[in-house]
Amino acid sequence: MLEDLKEKVLRANLDLVKHGLVIFTWGNVSAIDRESGLVVIKPSGVSYDDMKASDMVVVDLDGNVVEGGLRPSSDTPTHLVLYKAFPEIGGIVHTHSTYATAWAQAGLDIEPLGTTHADYFHGPVPCTPDMSVSQINGKYEEETGNVIVKTFRKLNPVHTPAVLVKNHGPFAWGKDAAEAVYHAKVLEEVAKMNYLAETIYEIRKVSRCVAASSGPSIRKALIEKHFSRKHGPNAYYGQKKK
Amino acid sequence: MLEDLKEKVLRANLDLVKHGLVIFTWGNVSAIDRESGLVVIKPSGVSYDDMKASDMVVVDLDGNVVEGGLRPSSDTPTHLVLYKAFPEIGGIVHTHSTYATAWAQAGLDIEPLGTTHADYFHGPVPCTPDMSVSQINGKYEEETGNVIVKTFRKLNPVHTPAVLVKNHGPFAWGKDAAEAVYHAKVLEEVAKMNYLAETIYEIRKVSRCVAASSGPSIRKALIEKHFSRKHGPNAYYGQKKK
Amino acid sequence: MLEDLKEKVLRANLDLVKHGLVIFTWGNVSAIDRESGLVVIKPSGVSYDDMKASDMVVVDLDGNVVEGGLRPSSDTPTHLVLYKAFPEIGGIVHTHSTYATAWAQAGLDIEPLGTTHADYFHGPVPCTPDMSVSQINGKYEEETGNVIVKTFRKLNPVHTPAVLVKNHGPFAWGKDAAEAVYHAKVLEEVAKMNYLAETIYEIRKVSRCVAASSGPSIRKALIEKHFSRKHGPNAYYGQKKK
Amino acid sequence: MLEDLKEKVLRANLDLVKHGLVIFTWGNVSAIDRESGLVVIKPSGVSYDDMKASDMVVVDLDGNVVEGGLRPSSDTPTHLVLYKAFPEIGGIVHTHSTYATAWAQAGLDIEPLGTTHADYFHGPVPCTPDMSVSQINGKYEEETGNVIVKTFRKLNPVHTPAVLVKNHGPFAWGKDAAEAVYHAKVLEEVAKMNYLAETIYEIRKVSRCVAASSGPSIRKALIEKHFSRKHGPNAYYGQKKK
Repeated sequence: MLEDLKEKVLRANLDLVKHGLVIFTWGNVSAIDRESGLVVIKPSGVSYDDMKASDMVVVDLDGNVVEGGLRPSSDTPTHLVLYKAFPEIGGIVHTHSTYATAWAQAGLDIEPLGTTHADYFHGPVPCTPDMSVSQINGKYEEETGNVIVKTFRKLNPVHTPAVLVKNHGPFAWGKDAAEAVYHAKVLEEVAKMNYLAETIYEIRKVSRCVAASSGPSIRKALIEKHFSRKHGPNAYYGQKKK
Repeated sequence: MLEDLKEKVLRANLDLVKHGLVIFTWGNVSAIDRESGLVVIKPSGVSYDDMKASDMVVVDLDGNVVEGGLRPSSDTPTHLVLYKAFPEIGGIVHTHSTYATAWAQAGLDIEPLGTTHADYFHGPVPCTPDMSVSQINGKYEEETGNVIVKTFRKLNPVHTPAVLVKNHGPFAWGKDAAEAVYHAKVLEEVAKMNYLAETIYEIRKVSRCVAASSGPSIRKALIEKHFSRKHGPNAYYGQKKK
Repeated sequence: MLEDLKEKVLRANLDLVKHGLVIFTWGNVSAIDRESGLVVIKPSGVSYDDMKASDMVVVDLDGNVVEGGLRPSSDTPTHLVLYKAFPEIGGIVHTHSTYATAWAQAGLDIEPLGTTHADYFHGPVPCTPDMSVSQINGKYEEETGNVIVKTFRKLNPVHTPAVLVKNHGPFAWGKDAAEAVYHAKVLEEVAKMNYLAETIYEIRKVSRCVAASSGPSIRKALIEKHFSRKHGPNAYYGQKKK
Repeated sequence: MLEDLKEKVLRANLDLVKHGLVIFTWGNVSAIDRESGLVVIKPSGVSYDDMKASDMVVVDLDGNVVEGGLRPSSDTPTHLVLYKAFPEIGGIVHTHSTYATAWAQAGLDIEPLGTTHADYFHGPVPCTPDMSVSQINGKYEEETGNVIVKTFRKLNPVHTPAVLVKNHGPFAWGKDAAEAVYHAKVLEEVAKMNYLAETIYEIRKVSRCVAASSGPSIRKALIEKHFSRKHGPNAYYGQKKK
């Protein structure tokens, strides 16, 4: 059942380790088969070292296990909320990657400061607000999905394929599991570059008593230019699609 | 004598190197056999490169060498104090891992800022107070254990399985040597994430003249939720225990 | 056609990965054959994993593809402007390497703070000013070259073989593709050292209320000394050229 | 001639690469044969990749090349001054390792903040003052040695086996080439730990308006204790010397 998708989800999970985005069991990848409405996801708390394609769990969009001998990731309800709210996406990744998680712990959006960011994210990568105590003590993982969806009510999830869940860590997505992993890696690199750019800019501003501004700046036109080099009808980066 | 435990303690010591937690001889792991009250520990100042299971030293809880041709780790008295004070634990690790040691050198607790922390540590990872001159010049390593135990007089060592010894470095523990190493690695990752989260939050606050608060914040309910997902009767993370 | 140069450009592109300067497709190297005025450059958006010498694209200085079945790097017009303006150079590298990009995102020159810098760069590595909206929306990549050339109107590109394009990332160059890669790696190391030196100096200055100065300082004579140890008629570093 | 020492110096040079302390040609190791007064040192500007023991250059204490077909390291005069001034040492290392060089570029001593430091360095690792213009323009490398020796006029070089040359980078030494490399690695680790400890401590102090102090603190007795655990007649760390 969905053997091909299981193989892809396994590979995407292992790629998280290869890219240095997870240690131990600190991450998970899923993918959806939109035709059947079934989701393939990593099992909960299983080590990456001896994970096999057959360990992947198949669940329906209500969270019922359809196939698999192991419990699905405890974050499964979050994934399902996102698949239901964002019909364009096919794969989701959650990690505790170091720099993205640091921004999430600081409770700060990652603002666009450079073209590396603008090539992939059309505006800030937003950080969700605090969840309420009743959300935390209720259906916590489902509410985590809800708070992400609410944060995106004015955003296009295809143009901003990642989010920081406050005090927790990043979720990233894409058209399939592989692209979701790709966006998770880009996010971590951008998070590191922005950490470095902001800290050097701000400390020098404070130290040298430069007149206050809100931080490093980038022209809006530059963000638009780089995003449109890679996305939309006039994209010209890379090779022609066949 | 305790050949199986020696093998596990050797493996745990080598895992410190694999996880990037020690260079040279800057760390040690021990484990206790609660039935006999005997502790197996790494020899002092021996390189990880050519350490063998038979090099592990067996000592009793009074510090007498029961078996082994090498001197035990100079930190052995600290380990023994912890085994006597914390009867639930079976393994102890000491390292000078970079980020955890930096917090110890700054003399600061590692506050919970995220769910990565809350998954493993139920509240701050405390930093011990300064030792007195007489403690330092007396039975120094034993006093190091005493200051840790005193720091934990209102804390449950199973729920907070690590400590920072001020100006020195981290000790972590667990039900056995492998879990102690696991907690030492988690601590280092959390120490890095918190360093990054705090510095970006604080420097931006200073630079942009944001009204003062005490630092990045996290809801208490979120800490409780994540800790209880993995610990206690209602834990639901991972696979069912058989 | 230019098979030898294609091989060198391929190798230089792969060295970017080896030196940790690029992930995915985030960089490109070119080299020029001054005799024919032809430039060999990496194809756009192709993964480093399966790139072959025969994938390299040959373009003339007007940007016409002379040989090759793939589109050249989208940054090709920037390279061409530099080859036309700086006749002494034979190879160009563009990366999004982490620390150099962070300085570019902060919009700050990298000032000389040490001899590592002075051994290779005769003065600051400059950061270009903001491009205007019409430059961004016009022939963007060509204008990127123009803004670099304008930044160097009083600088010798052989003595300062790198630049930071604001909000984007570094370009480096050299007498050939291999030396351009070498300078790109040196720049990244210098960018990291300077980040660390500045942040520790500035934060301590602020914290300890040291009387204001403009930052860490270096004697001009030391910069001259180190640059001239490696460059010019009195250079005495390394082995005698045969 | 001194074949055994050449082999050791080669190995020590290669260990710099293994420990991540140098890239390209950014470092050198030498060792002295005290009996003959001859020094074996790395050749200048030669890549580590294809260095052989027979490439090592033998010089006397006046800097005359006694054996070898290559020029000795351009830093040779610095090494010779140190061998003449510090008769107890047998090996010297110079690197541009990232964190130690950052402190040198900031012009700051590395203060003891922890036991990792105190285990090896008995007090601060000092940073030399600015060299005068006439020192820089005169016999620069010899003067570099002189400024180090002057910095140590009240220090014991065996108890503080490293120095930061301002705006340049670290020199470390030991009883032989291998111990010099060991101290260079320890210095880099301590430099990183102290960077992290200071920045987190200072930025939090500034942000939270904590009453000013001079930085993180450590008890003098703790420094003495740790240094004496490893050095002097009452040392008890490690195995008994045979």
